[in-house]
Order: sequence, then structure tokens, then C-alpha cells
Amino acid sequence: MGACPHAWQHHLPHRGRMWAASPAFRRQLFLLRSLAPTCVDGGRVSSSSLRLHAMSAAPAAAGPVYEADAEAVVRRITPPLDRARHKGQAGKIAIIGGCREYTGAPYFAAISALKVGADLSHVFCTKDAATVIKSYSPELIVHPILEESYSVRDDERESVSSSILTEVIKWMERFDCIVVGPGLGRDSFLMDCVSNIMRHARQANIPTVVDGDGLFLITNNIGLVEDNSLAILTPNVYEYKRLVQKVLNCEVNEENASEQLTALCEKIGGVTIMRKGKADLISDGKKVTQVSTFGSPRRCGGQGDILSGSVAVFSSWAWHFLSSNEQPKENSVNPMVLGCIAGSLLLRKAAALAFEKNKRSTVTTDIIEFLGQSLEDICPAGR
Amino acid sequence: MGACPHAWQHHLPHRGRMWAASPAFRRQLFLLRSLAPTCVDGGRVSSSSLRLHAMSAAPAAAGPVYEADAEAVVRRITPPLDRARHKGQAGKIAIIGGCREYTGAPYFAAISALKVGADLSHVFCTKDAATVIKSYSPELIVHPILEESYSVRDDERESVSSSILTEVIKWMERFDCIVVGPGLGRDSFLMDCVSNIMRHARQANIPTVVDGDGLFLITNNIGLVEDNSLAILTPNVYEYKRLVQKVLNCEVNEENASEQLTALCEKIGGVTIMRKGKADLISDGKKVTQVSTFGSPRRCGGQGDILSGSVAVFSSWAWHFLSSNEQPKENSVNPMVLGCIAGSLLLRKAAALAFEKNKRSTVTTDIIEFLGQSLEDICPAGR
Repeated sequence: MGACPHAWQHHLPHRGRMWAASPAFRRQLFLLRSLAPTCVDGGRVSSSSLRLHAMSAAPAAAGPVYEADAEAVVRRITPPLDRARHKGQAGKIAIIGGCREYTGAPYFAAISALKVGADLSHVFCTKDAATVIKSYSPELIVHPILEESYSVRDDERESVSSSILTEVIKWMERFDCIVVGPGLGRDSFLMDCVSNIMRHARQANIPTVVDGDGLFLITNNIGLVEDNSLAILTPNVYEYKRLVQKVLNCEVNEENASEQLTALCEKIGGVTIMRKGKADLISDGKKVTQVSTFGSPRRCGGQGDILSGSVAVFSSWAWHFLSSNEQPKENSVNPMVLGCIAGSLLLRKAAALAFEKNKRSTVTTDIIEFLGQSLEDICPAGR
Repeated sequence: MGACPHAWQHHLPHRGRMWAASPAFRRQLFLLRSLAPTCVDGGRVSSSSLRLHAMSAAPAAAGPVYEADAEAVVRRITPPLDRARHKGQAGKIAIIGGCREYTGAPYFAAISALKVGADLSHVFCTKDAATVIKSYSPELIVHPILEESYSVRDDERESVSSSILTEVIKWMERFDCIVVGPGLGRDSFLMDCVSNIMRHARQANIPTVVDGDGLFLITNNIGLVEDNSLAILTPNVYEYKRLVQKVLNCEVNEENASEQLTALCEKIGGVTIMRKGKADLISDGKKVTQVSTFGSPRRCGGQGDILSGSVAVFSSWAWHFLSSNEQPKENSVNPMVLGCIAGSLLLRKAAALAFEKNKRSTVTTDIIEFLGQSLEDICPAGR
């Protein structure tokens, strides 16, 4: 495995696919150039636009970890709202997840994508999960097309797998980002189908966030994300431990957390990893950035799903933002890293507001309710 | 049957399994030692920490019944919120219940556990119930694995029963407490499966709250809880009557309510019983404590489910709290009793607030909405 520097640049989307052509977008670029000449040079976002500040005492790592100016990132990559835009131009996201056992996780990820600002949010899940997920919200488009082993006869597996892929492929090109894993479960047949979907997304240059059971899948089959610079992994403490053991063949080393994270990214080759924790550490193998804004001390299940849905939207926004101009090979910023920074900050802000209101009884739904206000606080819609 | 004094001490969980290792927890212990030397000795909670006060006129019983200082109990056993903690460390609870007929009860118990402060709340129910319970809330993890007689052929019973147990066992070790009974129904096949689950939970040292149809089950098969010091029974007036008839072979005697409750606990052997009523009487066979804080005059169905879910969380918190230091054989407090005291108070406080707002139209969902505020009033999250 080998890192492929700036490989995501080869995949830049067609200009204007999302909103690059809009006058408002050009106006925003102009403003950025005027207001922050050190940050934006000729419309290109340089690494200094993150306004990195050395941390005097980064608690999670002894290596050089920089705190991102995450608010500035959110403000830069969030597209202006323009009356002339059409449905879908602010983003179309799909969640691959939801099985007989889990329905909450894909719902949280999908509804969070909408609440952050995407126009359309799809869920591809099993038939058992679909009815329930649909019932959570009429806002989502839910495709009951996945199957688990118990519902497929052995002699049908190949044909069912093939027709699932065909069905997903019909939709794939429309998505600005997919999230693989929330509530996916670990059924072997389902894992095989989702592997095929991931391979297709990669061929189609669709950015892919991998979380939850998706991380279980890729940890056992690292080739699925190897050298994919449009892949983002968002492991929690346990998932990160397994990833380090499998890929680096050693244990997590807190003393050299940032070096180890960089090594992990490099070994897999060009993926972006957000190691979730007290501070979220983010790297694409080149440098390590952290977001440590305090969120909430509540650790109720589901917050990771909010994060994966939000990161999907922000990453696609960052990618399209950067695509409006040529990127210099040097000094450029990885949009996947920007997406992680923005998603991390937004979850933390929303969790803080939800906790202020609900205290110990805070649940994930309470946090989702504050995504809108948190984004508005950072980046007012009327700007 | 014979009482096994302090038998729960043999089952104390590994230190730090939940939060004992955190600095905030050690700080709290230190504060307790400094502030209340008569209550906490060397980090051990003694029976005087309940600040028992003799009741001059306990209406429900002629024997010695002490009113617990339930607020102090809640404050002591509720873990501090610590930024460094991970998902799951504040508690993982499972409800065994939910069938074709009943879906509300397991939902009420499971969501209450989350609102009290657990991180993850599971429900194990029948397939028919699962879709509905899932649709009530995306916060819950619902496993559609139980079966009733009508869906199982006679010649399949053994294999289905065995695979149900296998599926539950996969999860059991993760839980800090299980609640058996809310909305379980009384189907004979289901009762057999749940008996197996209870036996396994006991072997695995998982605290078990038994309520509703779970009490019907154990009343007819008292061996399921006999000598299990990690079992809590929470009978209402009718369930208590049947339990007394079956175990003590006599009628309920209000004149000697506390002696009878003590005798019942002793006869079953070491279980904790909370006899619900105008005042909740709580005993593990050694002494009787009561919580008589006024709640609400509304008796809408479902309040017992809030209680069982809350008691599950508080009992596991109390157990872990006490496990942080060695317990002296004498003068110690049963964590199951502390869990009952805390759960009883919290329900009463929340019911009072809900009634103040909703009056005669108060329903169980209204009470659940006030669990957070009630806990915050007693035990502020920012302390």
C-alpha cells in the first residue's frame, strides 16, 4: 500500500455540477479573496486557510497536532443559499445501512444530512428495516433493496446479489456522497453486497464515508478503501483499535497518537481518517488536525451517525468548493479533511446546545434538533 | 430457601468496568469522604448513608419502616459526567418483553432507561412487536427474536428455543442490567424461553429487574430468582398478593406489612423486593425502607414500566459505585436496594411535574418527558 498525494484532485467533480456556476458562489469566492488574502490565493484554498494553530498541550497525542479553525472551515465550504438553485444542487446523500436489527442509525445519519442542508437524503436498507425507517420520517427516500442471508436461498445468492447491485447502480451517479455502515449489521451476504456497492462507488468517483459496521467490513478487507482518496473512515475508540491492529499489526499507542494515525493513513494509502474521541483527530496521512471544541459529556448511542451524515454533506460541499478552480499540487487542502473538520465541529456545537437543554436525559434526537441552530450560529443563512 | 446475607457482594463487577477508573469518579469519592464522614467510611458506603429516619406513623405498616433519604441516594450513585468517557460506560440496559399484544410497556421501560442516563437501551421482543417498538423511537435497539406458541410448530420448539437463547447470549455480557417482563405476555413457549434467558443472566451475574408478566412467570417458578441477590422484584398490589399467597402461603397482612415483606424476601432468599403502593416499601430481607414522596394521583398504565427501566439504570450505577472499594461484610448497603430507592423517587418527582402540567389528562409519555428535569433538580449534571 502506498500514499498517493493529493489523489483526490484526480477525481474533482465537473465544475458546476453542484453550484460552482452560480453568481452567489463566485461572489463568495471574491469575498474570500478580498477578506482573507493569506488564506485564499487566486481562488485556491491553501492549507493556511485552516488557520492552523500549534497546540501548546494536545492531550491526546505527543506529536504535532494542530487545532483547526473549524468555524472558518464551515463558513468557507458551506454554499450560499441562492434563489436560482434547483433541488439537489445543495447535495444528494445516500446511506447504505439498516437491517433487521438496526433502524435508528441509518435514520439518524440520513436525517442529519438533511438538517445540515442537503436537498435529498436516501437510505438503502433491507426490506425489514425499510418500513420502520420510512415511519420515522417522511423526509427520507428509503429503498428496501438489501437482503440478509436468512432471506436468500443459497442457489439464489448470486442472482440476488447481482440485482441488488444493478438497482443501486441506477442511483449511484446522482449522489454527491454515500455513507456506508450505519446500522448495516454484519450478515455475510449483506457484507458481500455492500462490498460490491463500495467498489462501484469508487469506480464512479463518489466520495464514501465509512462508519459503524462498514468499518468492520473494511477492516477485514482493507482493499475496499486502499488508495481511495475519496474515502473517509470515522472510527470510534474500539473501531480504531481493531483498525490499528489489523493494518499496522500493533496496539494503539497514545503517546504517539498523531504519528500512528498518519502511519495508518499512509499504510492504507490516501484515505482520510477521523479518529473520534475527546478530541477528534483527523488526518489524510500528511498532517494531523484536531477539533477539540467541547460538546457534551453524554455518550448516548447514535451520535456517530449524526457525524457520518454531516461529514458526508460537508465533504461533498468542500469538494465542490475546491473544484471551482484548479488546485495547485502543493499547498492544497484535502476536501475530505475539511468535511471531517466541519462535521466534527457541528456535532459538538449541537451536542452542547442539546445538553444545555436536556442535561442527563439528552438523546440523539435532541442533538439533531440543534444542528440547524448550530450551523446558523456559525454561518448565518442570510449572509 | 435461605437468605444469603450480602450475597450480591460476591458478584461485584470488575472495578472500572463502567467508570470507577475515571478521575472524576475518584474526586467524587474523595468529596463524599470529606463532606460526609459519618456516611462514607474509606470510600465505602455504609447503611447510615441512607440517613434513615424512623417514621413516627408509617401508614402502610405497623413494623419499623424507615423513610429513605432518597435524594441523597440519587446524588451518590449517579455517576459524574466525564468528558473522557466512551459510549456505553454510563450503562447498557436490555428489556426482555414485547409481544403481539403489548408494545407500549417495553418501549416505556427502554426509553426511560435512556432518559435517566444510560447510553444504550435494547429491547428483545417478538417479531410482531419489534416493528412497532422500533417505530416509537429510533433511539432503541430492538431485536425481533422471541417467538410465541402460535408461530412455532411443536416439532420446532426445541430448536427455536435453543436458537433464541444463543442469540440473546451473544449480547448478554454487554448489559449492566436486564429488565424481564414489561409487555411480555403469558404465552407458554415464550415463558419457557424467558426462563432460559433468566437462568443465563444469573450465571453471567447480570442484575435482573422482574416486573409485569415476568412476576407472573417467577411466581409460578420461584426457583428462577431464589437466592439471586442480583434480582429485584417490583410487584404492584395484585402481583404482590399472588407472590405472598404462593411463597408464604397466606394472605397479605397490612397490619404487619413490613414484617411480611421481610419474611417474603427471606423465604425467597436474598432478592430485593419493592412493593409498590401509596408508599413504595423496599426490602432485601434485612430491613424495610420506604419512599413516600408524593407523586401523582393519576394511575395511568405504564408508570410501572418507567419504574422498572429507571431501577435498572440506578441499580447498575449503585452496583458499580459500591464496587469501587471493598465492601465490609457488616454495615454495608445492598446496591439493589439503593437502585429501588432512587428509581422510586425519580418516578414520583417526574409524575408530580407531569401532573402539574397535564392534570387529569396526564399519560405515561408526559411523565417520561419530566424524567430529565426531575433528575436535574436532584442531581445537577454540572455538579
